[in-house]
Amino acid sequence: MGERQISQAVIRRLPRYYRYLGELLENGVERISSNELSKRMKVTASQIRQDLNNFGGFGQQGYGYNVKYLHSEIGKILGIDKSNHMVIIGAGNLGHALANYSAFEKRGFVLDGMFDVNPELVGMEVRGIPVQMIDELEPFLESHQIDIGVLTIPKSAVVEIANILVKHGVKAIWNFAHTDLNLPDDVIVENVHLSESLMRLSYNIARYKEEHNK
Amino acid sequence: MGERQISQAVIRRLPRYYRYLGELLENGVERISSNELSKRMKVTASQIRQDLNNFGGFGQQGYGYNVKYLHSEIGKILGIDKSNHMVIIGAGNLGHALANYSAFEKRGFVLDGMFDVNPELVGMEVRGIPVQMIDELEPFLESHQIDIGVLTIPKSAVVEIANILVKHGVKAIWNFAHTDLNLPDDVIVENVHLSESLMRLSYNIARYKEEHNK
Repeated sequence: MGERQISQAVIRRLPRYYRYLGELLENGVERISSNELSKRMKVTASQIRQDLNNFGGFGQQGYGYNVKYLHSEIGKILGIDKSNHMVIIGAGNLGHALANYSAFEKRGFVLDGMFDVNPELVGMEVRGIPVQMIDELEPFLESHQIDIGVLTIPKSAVVEIANILVKHGVKAIWNFAHTDLNLPDDVIVENVHLSESLMRLSYNIARYKEEHNK
Repeated sequence: MGERQISQAVIRRLPRYYRYLGELLENGVERISSNELSKRMKVTASQIRQDLNNFGGFGQQGYGYNVKYLHSEIGKILGIDKSNHMVIIGAGNLGHALANYSAFEKRGFVLDGMFDVNPELVGMEVRGIPVQMIDELEPFLESHQIDIGVLTIPKSAVVEIANILVKHGVKAIWNFAHTDLNLPDDVIVENVHLSESLMRLSYNIARYKEEHNK
């Protein structure tokens, strides 16, 4: 489908299309025009047409988009019709929150293991997955094919753990630690820097208060 | 300082500068050139100079940037020298993870209340803040000045709660629910859509596997 030339900007928008189309599906909507979708998503209809044309365009003039078909095609492009196996390193509250996240399995993400340094957590189970001690990580990676390592650990520990994961062939890191990782170029890193999100919020509040003389 | 004309792109980058400068401070680094900072942050030195020039430029030719001064000035721009009061709605794992997030107070974010619909959570405390039932939210908002509502609840509940918050003068929402909010234009919304982050990861893994014929 020639999706190799798709810009990162379009790729960043695809999950949002997928989410909206999923909501439409849940509400029993079978087809939608780019104008209607535009109103809901608050992006221009021409942007929508342009983005979806990257994938050969699923729309028909005067008919609109077939919601189910478009949802499933974008899902394929996003790779969520395939299974990805993952481990979570860090079984604190955030690790638990992610492990309990029900959308994971719906989107092909299979949690195979959870690891922590805290011996008090050993024996605990999250959705049937036992928390193991961190020194069991390397033997585990040797006997399991893991695609994604999810890091919900302090930044002081993150470099060592990321290197262990990469050494054992893990090709993608979902990083929640407040630091950037320096990993080989072929390792895929998706950062979720909550502190930066919070600072953007703080910036906008400060501007708001300034403008309203509060 | 004329920061009103600063583009959103620059603002999105400021928290990352703040994080790097904070790490330098922790490591006892007193000054840094744009070239050194460029290497660490993996952005061009000219981008750094351009970005920081937006704020009058804190650098001096041949000397570089004073790390402590620049860190503190960016902190002021980001508004984290001021206090912001917040409530967390949703005392599940994610709500707990955020409530326990130690960087909050360091950055002026004060947690005043936590609310949930689950009666089993009542009486639980997180960092001295008791979890209250959701029907206590409105009276609480009437007697407290709250800047930020943090939403870690399912998307089905999010619209109703966001409207209650806005009705009582809350001006900023940190939204973790998997949906967009339609709120008045003057309400600041910062979304953290974890499912979209996960799908970007999934997309990149799918492309990787395709290229490596796995």
